[in-house]
Amino acid sequence: MPDVVVSPATTQEVVAVVKTCSKMQVPMIPYGGATSIEGHLLAPLGGCSIDFSRMNAVKRLSKEDHDVTVQPGLGYLELNEMLKEHGMWFPLDPGPGASLGGMCSCSCSGSTAVRYGTMKDNVLSMTVVLADGQEVKTSSRAKKSSAGYDLTRLFVGSEGTLGIITEVTLKIHKIPAYSNSVRVSFDSIDAAAKTVQDTLAAGIQIGRAELLDDTMVQVLNKANNTRHREATTLLFELSGESPGSVADAQRAVLALAKKRGGGKPHVATNPEECRELWRQRKEALWSLMGLYPELECMTTDVCVPVSRLSDLIGQSKRELDASRLPAPIVAHAGDGNFHALIMFDRTNPADVAEADRLSSFMVHKALEMEGTCTGEHGVGVGKIKYLPEEHGDGAMHTMRVIKRGLDPGGLMNPGKVLAHRRDPQTGRLVLCA
Amino acid sequence: MPDVVVSPATTQEVVAVVKTCSKMQVPMIPYGGATSIEGHLLAPLGGCSIDFSRMNAVKRLSKEDHDVTVQPGLGYLELNEMLKEHGMWFPLDPGPGASLGGMCSCSCSGSTAVRYGTMKDNVLSMTVVLADGQEVKTSSRAKKSSAGYDLTRLFVGSEGTLGIITEVTLKIHKIPAYSNSVRVSFDSIDAAAKTVQDTLAAGIQIGRAELLDDTMVQVLNKANNTRHREATTLLFELSGESPGSVADAQRAVLALAKKRGGGKPHVATNPEECRELWRQRKEALWSLMGLYPELECMTTDVCVPVSRLSDLIGQSKRELDASRLPAPIVAHAGDGNFHALIMFDRTNPADVAEADRLSSFMVHKALEMEGTCTGEHGVGVGKIKYLPEEHGDGAMHTMRVIKRGLDPGGLMNPGKVLAHRRDPQTGRLVLCA
Repeated sequence: MPDVVVSPATTQEVVAVVKTCSKMQVPMIPYGGATSIEGHLLAPLGGCSIDFSRMNAVKRLSKEDHDVTVQPGLGYLELNEMLKEHGMWFPLDPGPGASLGGMCSCSCSGSTAVRYGTMKDNVLSMTVVLADGQEVKTSSRAKKSSAGYDLTRLFVGSEGTLGIITEVTLKIHKIPAYSNSVRVSFDSIDAAAKTVQDTLAAGIQIGRAELLDDTMVQVLNKANNTRHREATTLLFELSGESPGSVADAQRAVLALAKKRGGGKPHVATNPEECRELWRQRKEALWSLMGLYPELECMTTDVCVPVSRLSDLIGQSKRELDASRLPAPIVAHAGDGNFHALIMFDRTNPADVAEADRLSSFMVHKALEMEGTCTGEHGVGVGKIKYLPEEHGDGAMHTMRVIKRGLDPGGLMNPGKVLAHRRDPQTGRLVLCA
Repeated sequence: MPDVVVSPATTQEVVAVVKTCSKMQVPMIPYGGATSIEGHLLAPLGGCSIDFSRMNAVKRLSKEDHDVTVQPGLGYLELNEMLKEHGMWFPLDPGPGASLGGMCSCSCSGSTAVRYGTMKDNVLSMTVVLADGQEVKTSSRAKKSSAGYDLTRLFVGSEGTLGIITEVTLKIHKIPAYSNSVRVSFDSIDAAAKTVQDTLAAGIQIGRAELLDDTMVQVLNKANNTRHREATTLLFELSGESPGSVADAQRAVLALAKKRGGGKPHVATNPEECRELWRQRKEALWSLMGLYPELECMTTDVCVPVSRLSDLIGQSKRELDASRLPAPIVAHAGDGNFHALIMFDRTNPADVAEADRLSSFMVHKALEMEGTCTGEHGVGVGKIKYLPEEHGDGAMHTMRVIKRGLDPGGLMNPGKVLAHRRDPQTGRLVLCA
């Protein structure tokens, strides 16, 4: 728990908070939609939680330039409600409730990254307040620039540890005019993962390519009272600006699925059917938690080169299926990213240890396969222990140099991304080696 | 001129060079394809030029993952020769002769950025040698990651001032199966620029959208012995995986061009015709230099939000047309980026002053329009003076903190991006305020 919570309304108020905290040596923890799952919002060293719920305005919209400037407390669902009337959207879709500032901080993505990229690809510019209260405008509003170090992409994904985001300019996109969704089941994870690979290799423009394992289909069948075949399943979204281009893409995907032994496909063409298909996918976590109301969920987040996904899910699934903890899998298969949703009882030490063991197994396997311990959730406190293995000494050194340079007092969200401790002599926060 | 030139063959040799230079306090200037135009390769404070011509190997290729690992001295044209047989390409197209390491350093792009993005979007990972000789692997090979600060994108565009790139892993793409090119002329720059905006707003997938002003069409007509209408002209490339999708896109673009008063379009459908059209565009600079063999070219590079491009080109063109220096314009219109190719006599001080005045006019106008002084060429020594106006104090401070932290001795390509001077007392290089 933090020692104090403040709710600023403007960048100027954030500057005042930051200057006061720096003077008093109080850690600062930005607080957005509170949907992050790696402990980003915790205050392990005490401090001041900076709640952005009052800073949730849309400041400007340019339909011509396809960009919008918002305050960081605005939710992406609220932004999309506003954009819809202009035929536009901000396609990234992390957990519902996420705020755009938090999404920048954690460099999230979601099911649409295969088409639109991650936050790193969709933030044009930000205003950030540094530990000493200086305001930084990270970039102009031009679509591209080579004018010096890329501060936008340095602060995106820095999880509040280098500065506090007070304004964000995002790229927005036209809502595709035509969109179909396809559901196909497979006899093996390998056949499904290879189908996605084949689709990418063929250059087919897909909007989404999601994989559910058999356990997850079981969960969704129970929760939604459906009777889908309980086998590895792919959900594709195909979208474009003409019916012909969508039909061409759909035909090509279905042919590739068939070659890999895919079952009879279900094609959703009308908007309500498509929405229903993606609603069920989007609510997978809640469906699962509804089945185990007494348990909590640990969501893993490894990501590997696409060619290794099948192997990694295969190895992971053997461990998961052998475990007594329920742990279905959903994957953003087009990105090589998957989540195991491990259900466990936090009051039972054996459960906690088993969930940790499974998560650690997947991380180490992913790192062996040239992957990352977190594809889209961020480091927070939960993944700190894996960073040295993933990055090596040189990169860890570089991150610490940047952190020390921009936050010498260690007050910006300390204990996230890089470990901190309080020096017993001086009382100051210092970076651990 | 540098004091010495070395040609390392491996990362280990680069490490040895860097350690020696650091010990002896010798500035280090990486040297790739030597096509950069902002003075990146100069040695204004003396030092060691590190020539990467021997480090030009392809180290690995993954067709499955659409990525390739290369040494930095390899040219993008050579890489594409190799990739062609696999049906793939690395689409970014700066000046012919550019090396991939230099392209990373300057964060270049070119005519295909409207579809594929810039180097920032197409580098997966790099190996970089820091000033103290430490090797940094900036990232895993996963398509996305939220595991700490984005070092890849920090080093892309840092112009050798934070470290020296010794290995690069790039995203590569399937060569589109079908491709048409379209040429349309307009009565005004505004009508042409608006047509590109309309195309983007309609969500039409374009491969390229290039604008030539009337002066440039004159130049190309003379050089290629063609008789195109000497008016503002758009060149579009439309590509995709089915003939239908390309035809749909072409129809949509032509309809939009017609609405804006576009002339009778010329459509190139066979590969040779398309190649010829883009060859002429690609060789625009050489065509121009052929017409004025006694002059040199200063290429400007401003970039603004797309909605401001027409206004900026219009204002710039009035200045350029009124000047006695020839200065045709080519624009990557889909990105809001354009180049005026100002021909001048370097031995004539009045010419130099006039070229500088024109360039400075465009930069200041671009900055007023929320743009950048360099869309894709980088800062080098040429744009240093504009950075404070573009970025403001906070961002300049942040860049200096990063530079000082990673290169405390100021030896990595000093005097590029940020100004340096030699302290007369100590003889050491220090950052200017």
